[in-house]
Parts: sequence; structure tokens; C-alpha cells
Amino acid sequence: MTGRTTEHAMEQGKNAAHAAPALIALDWGTTSLRAYLFDAAGKVLDTRVSTAGIMNLPVPAEEGGFDAAFDEACGVWLAASPSLPVLAAGMVGSAQGWVQAPYVETPAGEDALVAGIVTVRAACGAQVAVVPGVLEPGALPNVMRGEETQIFGALSGESSQAQAQSEAQAEAPTALIGLPGTHAKWAVMEGARIARFYTFMTGEVYAALKAHTILGRTMKLPAAPDTAAFLRGVTVAREHGSAGLLATAFSTRTLGLTDQLAADEQPDYLSGLVIGHELAGLEAVLARRDVALAACTPQLIGADALCERYRLALAQFGCTGARIVHAATERGLWRIAVRAGLVRAAA
Amino acid sequence: MTGRTTEHAMEQGKNAAHAAPALIALDWGTTSLRAYLFDAAGKVLDTRVSTAGIMNLPVPAEEGGFDAAFDEACGVWLAASPSLPVLAAGMVGSAQGWVQAPYVETPAGEDALVAGIVTVRAACGAQVAVVPGVLEPGALPNVMRGEETQIFGALSGESSQAQAQSEAQAEAPTALIGLPGTHAKWAVMEGARIARFYTFMTGEVYAALKAHTILGRTMKLPAAPDTAAFLRGVTVAREHGSAGLLATAFSTRTLGLTDQLAADEQPDYLSGLVIGHELAGLEAVLARRDVALAACTPQLIGADALCERYRLALAQFGCTGARIVHAATERGLWRIAVRAGLVRAAA
Repeated sequence: MTGRTTEHAMEQGKNAAHAAPALIALDWGTTSLRAYLFDAAGKVLDTRVSTAGIMNLPVPAEEGGFDAAFDEACGVWLAASPSLPVLAAGMVGSAQGWVQAPYVETPAGEDALVAGIVTVRAACGAQVAVVPGVLEPGALPNVMRGEETQIFGALSGESSQAQAQSEAQAEAPTALIGLPGTHAKWAVMEGARIARFYTFMTGEVYAALKAHTILGRTMKLPAAPDTAAFLRGVTVAREHGSAGLLATAFSTRTLGLTDQLAADEQPDYLSGLVIGHELAGLEAVLARRDVALAACTPQLIGADALCERYRLALAQFGCTGARIVHAATERGLWRIAVRAGLVRAAA
Repeated sequence: MTGRTTEHAMEQGKNAAHAAPALIALDWGTTSLRAYLFDAAGKVLDTRVSTAGIMNLPVPAEEGGFDAAFDEACGVWLAASPSLPVLAAGMVGSAQGWVQAPYVETPAGEDALVAGIVTVRAACGAQVAVVPGVLEPGALPNVMRGEETQIFGALSGESSQAQAQSEAQAEAPTALIGLPGTHAKWAVMEGARIARFYTFMTGEVYAALKAHTILGRTMKLPAAPDTAAFLRGVTVAREHGSAGLLATAFSTRTLGLTDQLAADEQPDYLSGLVIGHELAGLEAVLARRDVALAACTPQLIGADALCERYRLALAQFGCTGARIVHAATERGLWRIAVRAGLVRAAA
């Protein structure tokens, strides 16, 4: 046992005297790896974060890159408790991952996810259970890996207040869960199942427009996020949604050329445009199923500042009841581990 | 007189024995400079093309970059005929250009363009007349520089057959002129005036999606353009236009993941998606003014292969009468030079 491990164990001892580790769970995506150590009550005892995403392993995959990243993140915990069960979700289960966990098709509930778990044995001997992603087949297929776990975490996170509010309404609104980010996802829940979902390449397209088109050339980063410029962009996208992003994006430049949008307003304006087009598109696809976005009370999963932007943007679409869910990843990993029998939830 | 100039003059003499040079005209954009030498009948005697666009001058602008590029392109012609009038259109008249020719506002006819011409004296003594761009003011302003000249060139290019066809129709359709490219433009003509126009960042967004998002990672360039994959993308954009490009673009990846779209089909599929969203947006903005895209017979200005793609895509929207206009740039420069009195058109 190394000094570091001892020190680490001592820290845990201080913080959680009665909490023996019961589960290691990983949120292992393309560009990052987050590892959580849980006690038997589902409380997070320790967290480790690294940049060893599946496209950024410390050594190539064929040279044991997954084992190296896993040992680096969890070796200390496993050295102290070698028999801990391990669960992982995210791109680690993709074709480019450690082991491929084939997609489960919509409508997808937790039991289907658990049934689709695939196991890989790490070089250190640990069995790593990998949660499958979800596929919605069709002319425009959709896929997710990792988000399904966060979504079930959000279901765990329903506060009694929110549940009471929901029960009090004569007609329960369609349960909608949004995950803003590089590839934003919106899942429509029917009961505790993912009925269908949509992907919008919002974050990635915004970054590409800013860094690799003419729009970025006149931009200056503002000292602080400019909410007014952001909401102006959202409004333009909402009012001119049918013209499409290819058309409205150019206004970032022309409003600048005509002295109607300062250089340091342009990044937030464009952000508002892109997010506004996402929500206009969401409104349209929901409407095809007779669901009104304005009547939904979405749960939002993601970084606080980004979720707050989405709350403001949603309000422009008449959707005022959105709320931000915290710790959805940890809750989801725990919930699936319990359902899969990897741990027994404390009474 | 250098040997090269002599040789050049001799070549001209061979090709156009009776044609004395009467005009130099420049299409001077961001990344290229095209120079044309006209005779008094408006025939192009010689053409020079360079990469000395205003953002790519041989030396910095403040060190005489515009003069250097101009001399390189036209010095030979001016040495032979020092008093030739010179007309230039494009980004050369922008704030980053040689001289700023302020925008003319829509509705914009040729007389307004001519009235807005600004002149700059070159170091060699030549007076260079610069055509202004066009601005459509409003909540989503639009600007063009260079395209206005091509548009008036397309009006010159109306064949007698097309005119007879137009006159034969009980209700003349809205005259629509499309200029595909990096920033595609669509101009609605009322008589010989640009009534309004729209910009779509189609070419630039396509390039950014391919080179700087996850969509490019699984793509392979096909041996030859894949028209079927292109039209498939157009159809998806037309049928799912309201979901928006942020949503449909992701299908390039998911159709690949689900073995429904081969790697070498993906570039043309994405091209079809992006152009399809442009046309869906165009259809929507025209419809707001009670103009049906399907009822229009657009003229297309641009590279032949790209215009042919647009013709195919337009047909998917029920717009089957599109035709490609050639030499619109030269014709437009000549037409404006005549209107401005720089040359007198031969009878």
C-alpha cells in the first residue's frame, strides 16, 4: 500500500467514519472520465476527475489505454477494497470504447438498460459493468450514451415538492428532460421510460461558427456574459425560426456592420441565436405529437450557467417552469447499480 | 515596354484585330481578383485571375498592397493603353477595401448603384471607379458586395427566348436570382431593381461542419459526386425543415452508426441537408410575402457544378424552371460601366 493510498483512506475515514465503500461508478465520455466512490447508502465518498476520455487515453487503446486510465482513476480505491463492484456509463460502451454495449431501443426503461449491460474484465481483475446507450431507430435515428444514465438520475432526483406540484395538476404535462451541451439532447419521458428523444448539435455548431467562420472575426469576448444580447438572439431565432440558422446567423455580422451590435455583444447574441433555433426546432418536433413546449416543465441537466441560459431561453418560448437538476450523473449511476444488483441499497 | 507586354499586345492583335481595348473591369473579392479587358463592343479580350483578394494582398494594405495587386493584374494593359477607364466591384469597396463605397439601400436599381460609385486614384495614375454594395436595412439586415453587379449582369443575359416565355405567361412569376456559394444570396427582383434579398451561410457552414465537427470524422470523399446521397439529404431537410439544421445534421452521424449511410455517402448527404435547409428557409421567407418558391423560375449564378446541384435541389421543392446564367460577372461590370458613362457601348 502506497503512502498516497493510506493518506487517501485516512481522509475518507475522517469524512465518513461509518461509510464503507460499496461501489465504484464511472461516467466515461469522449473527453473526460469521472469516477465516483459510493457508500452503501448511495452517498458519494470520493470523486476523481481526469481528462482520460476514450479519445484521450494516456496510452493507445490497443496498448492497454483503458486499463491505464482505469487504474489511474480507481486503483487507489480498488487497492483498499479489491472486491468493489464497478459500473460505467458513456462512450466507454461505444464501438470505440473498452467494450461495446449495443444500444437499447426506445422506448427504453431502466430494466432494458440493466438487461443490456455488458461486462469487461480489467487487467487488475475487476469486473466492469458497462451501461448500454439508447437508440431511437427511424429515418432520422438518434443515439445517446451516458445521457440515459443522467436521465434516470433526474427521475431519482424528483423532489417531493415537484412531485406534489405535478400531482396537483389536472393534466400532468409531458415529462421533458433537456441535456444542454455539445450535442444537446431532449428526451420525452412516458412514465419511467425514454419514449423518444432528439439531438441538436448546438454546442458544437456554436463553437464551429465562432472559431471557423467569418462571424468570429469581428467578435470580442465580453467581460461578463451579456444576457441582453443573448436574449436578443433567442428572440430573433424564435421570430425568424422558419428562415433557419443559415440565414439568421449572418445577422451577427450585418448587425455589427450597421452598428447595431457591438463586437462584445456578438458572442452572446450568436449563442442566443443557436440555442433559440434549437428550442424552435424542439417546439416544432413536439408539436407534431401535439405537445406544446410552453405547457412542459422541463428538467435540465448540465452545467449550472448553461442550464440557466436555457431556462431564460425557454421562458421566451412561454415555457416558464423549467428547473435545474443537480447530481443527475451520480444519482443515475447509483440507481442503475442498485437495479442491476451490483449493490444493495441501504434501507 | 517589357518583352512580356509586347508579346501580350501581339496576342491580342492576333485574336481581335479590330478590337481596341476600351475598359478594364475588376471583380475584386475577399480571396481573389479577376480582371477583364473589354473592347468597345463589350467583348472580353483578355482575363487575368489572381489570388490577391483584399484579405490576401501581396503586401499589406498600408504598404500599398492594393496598388501592388492592381499593377500585377492590370499593369500590362495600362502600359499599352494608359487612359483606359477602370471599374471595380466587390469587397474592394468595403471598409477593409481600397476605398469605401457606402452601401446603396434596397430597393436598388442600376442608377442608384451608378450614383453611389466612389473613385480612388491608383499610384500609377489610373482612376478606379468602385461600385457600391447593397444593404437591406431592418431587424435582420442583409448586405452584398459584388453580387449586385452579377445580378445586373444576369438581367443583361436574359435570352430573347426566356423573355418571350415570360411575356407569354398570364402572370409573370416573381423574378428570383440565386447566387450559391460561401454566403449564398437570393435576390427578389421587381422590374430591374433588387427589391430585397436574403443571405444563407450555406457554403461556409458546410465547410465548418465537415472540417470542425464530429460529422467530418467518419466521412470519406467519394470518387465522384454522389447525387443520390445529395438528394437524400435535400429530402430530409425538406421533410424535417422545422426541426432545423442543428437536429438533422446529426443524422449524418447516426445513419452512419446504424449502417444506413456509407462513409463516402456522408459528404454529399450533408451537402444536400445544408442546401435543403437553405431552400426550406428561402421557401418560408418567400411565403411570408405570398410568393411560392415552386412558382418561381430562378436564375442561378455561380460555378456550373454547384448551380447544377441547386437545380436538382430546387426541383425537390417543386421549382423545376431554374436555369443557369453564364458570364454574369463580366456582363454586369460592362453594363454598369456603360450606364456610368465610362465607356460608350458600340451601336
